[in-house]
Amino acid sequence: MTTTRRAIESRLEEYGRRARHKALVYLDGDDDGEYLRTPASDYLLRPGKALRPAMCLAACGAFGGDPDRAMPTAAALELLHTAFLVHDDVEDDSDLRRGLPTLHRRYGRAVAINTGDGLIVYAMAALDDNRSLLGRRLAARLAGEFQFMARQTVEGQAMELGWQRRGRIDLTPDDYLDLIMKKTCWYTTVLPLRAGALIAGRRPDQLAALVRFGFFLGAAFQIRDDVLNLVGGERYGKEILGDIREGKRTLMLIHLLTAASPGERRRLQRFLRLAPGERTPPMVEEVAQMMHRHGSIAFAEEFGRGIARSAQVAFEEAFGAVPDSPEKRFIAELVPYMVERDR
Amino acid sequence: MTTTRRAIESRLEEYGRRARHKALVYLDGDDDGEYLRTPASDYLLRPGKALRPAMCLAACGAFGGDPDRAMPTAAALELLHTAFLVHDDVEDDSDLRRGLPTLHRRYGRAVAINTGDGLIVYAMAALDDNRSLLGRRLAARLAGEFQFMARQTVEGQAMELGWQRRGRIDLTPDDYLDLIMKKTCWYTTVLPLRAGALIAGRRPDQLAALVRFGFFLGAAFQIRDDVLNLVGGERYGKEILGDIREGKRTLMLIHLLTAASPGERRRLQRFLRLAPGERTPPMVEEVAQMMHRHGSIAFAEEFGRGIARSAQVAFEEAFGAVPDSPEKRFIAELVPYMVERDR
Repeated sequence: MTTTRRAIESRLEEYGRRARHKALVYLDGDDDGEYLRTPASDYLLRPGKALRPAMCLAACGAFGGDPDRAMPTAAALELLHTAFLVHDDVEDDSDLRRGLPTLHRRYGRAVAINTGDGLIVYAMAALDDNRSLLGRRLAARLAGEFQFMARQTVEGQAMELGWQRRGRIDLTPDDYLDLIMKKTCWYTTVLPLRAGALIAGRRPDQLAALVRFGFFLGAAFQIRDDVLNLVGGERYGKEILGDIREGKRTLMLIHLLTAASPGERRRLQRFLRLAPGERTPPMVEEVAQMMHRHGSIAFAEEFGRGIARSAQVAFEEAFGAVPDSPEKRFIAELVPYMVERDR
Repeated sequence: MTTTRRAIESRLEEYGRRARHKALVYLDGDDDGEYLRTPASDYLLRPGKALRPAMCLAACGAFGGDPDRAMPTAAALELLHTAFLVHDDVEDDSDLRRGLPTLHRRYGRAVAINTGDGLIVYAMAALDDNRSLLGRRLAARLAGEFQFMARQTVEGQAMELGWQRRGRIDLTPDDYLDLIMKKTCWYTTVLPLRAGALIAGRRPDQLAALVRFGFFLGAAFQIRDDVLNLVGGERYGKEILGDIREGKRTLMLIHLLTAASPGERRRLQRFLRLAPGERTPPMVEEVAQMMHRHGSIAFAEEFGRGIARSAQVAFEEAFGAVPDSPEKRFIAELVPYMVERDR
């Protein structure tokens, strides 16, 4: 691992530790907790990258704000992200999350779905703390940002599920970018950056450059995420090739559908018409091999590097006028980190 | 059907029509909608009882307010209720809702879970409209009420799932009442009544009597709901005996666990230790027969009538000083309706 990557990861760890600590405070209640607060804390106690709270706290600092004032928002982000993970894992029927069994494998589907709902409630409680901390006006503004973001996320999720259910095979990289803007970028990068900037005192009309930067950064993140699902090593905590089994329309699959020979394409279409449960490991492995053979993975990696270059440019637009600081440097270094990370 | 019941049902229908119409307004977005807005509207277009928006609108009117000012809140209630139904149906793996296949049977589990999340987002958008309609202060108060209620609901749901997963057989009717206060009453009766009163201008400290009334009314509702799952006729839209198959700790089951002979109790325990999928129709039928034989259903019905009498008393406390109005009479008539209804 490079020194920079190690430095970023230790920085992420520090932000993550603080945000998780704060997030866990909101998991209170007067029930016995065994089937709500305990499962709700489960993923939070399996440290993830904590990218979202880290970006929120760092953006707040970079724009001259006090990151402590962004703590409830960072906690809300981590709680909502956890809610999405829990529901996603049920939706995709995944086995592993951060190297351990998914929540529905541990507690059953019913508890997992309800726990995801509970995590949404906890996230809202965290956002409520902004009223006393930041004043009603800014708190309402942030709540509005969260609502818009949540809508983008469920719409993106619906779009992706729709592509799979309809058996879409006519998609282009542009369709993919439209999808991940909704499904991933708003909640992973755009909102955290915007929220941090707002808490630091930026006006809403000063945030357009952050949307562009957040889009490229989030896209680079998602492309790397998809690639890791094919080539991930021991630090990767999800089941390898899960995306192929689910029929996810990744850049690699979109590329392969164009690059494959007519015969391969027919096999691929047959594969995609099966229900996920009918797709056997050898079939999944065959699709992965086709992707290797046709350079679909190299294509996606190159595409990701191109997006990262755009992120670099957008970073200058968004942060160029901001004085140098450790937080600003951290955000700048996230750009190459997004395409290099192995977890 | 008695004239009163017909009158109440037509009143409910009118309230429901208006609330659903308003709720559907919030299902907008810029995706194509086929896998989000269409499934989100599905249950809303299968008219249910609309009890929750009806109580909110009627309470607002009974306390001298303008029900139109309660419309976004009524819509939010119906949207959130629909979100709970969608997620509940996945959690219980139910087949039918309002006489038609459940959402996950139509669209698959993944789309259903995401649609439930989407309905939560739509409900929050509806609540947001309260800011311009009712002013920031009251809007924030109502949002706080919704948050408290949502927490009660997920905690209650977790408690019930926990009882099933732990195989609890030592429960009393008091435990059951504690459960349904959390799981059902807050969101079905207590919050709708309180919200209507707040919108009509009541002060928060004047709402305690509504909690008592709402509790008894909601408990009468839930007990009847459980009984209908055993004896429901053609107007009942869910699968009969589904609660037994799921191992739900209803008053009937709690009664039966006490009333059964030692041999029956052992068979019952064996049944409850099975996974829901392993419980065959003949086993389920046998449990239902035991309940009939031991008077468990009559016990629950009598218990429900007792609760309804308490609701009558609590109604006088809560509404006694309020001038007569069609809305007040409607709420009074809901008490007997709760224990008589067949849907």
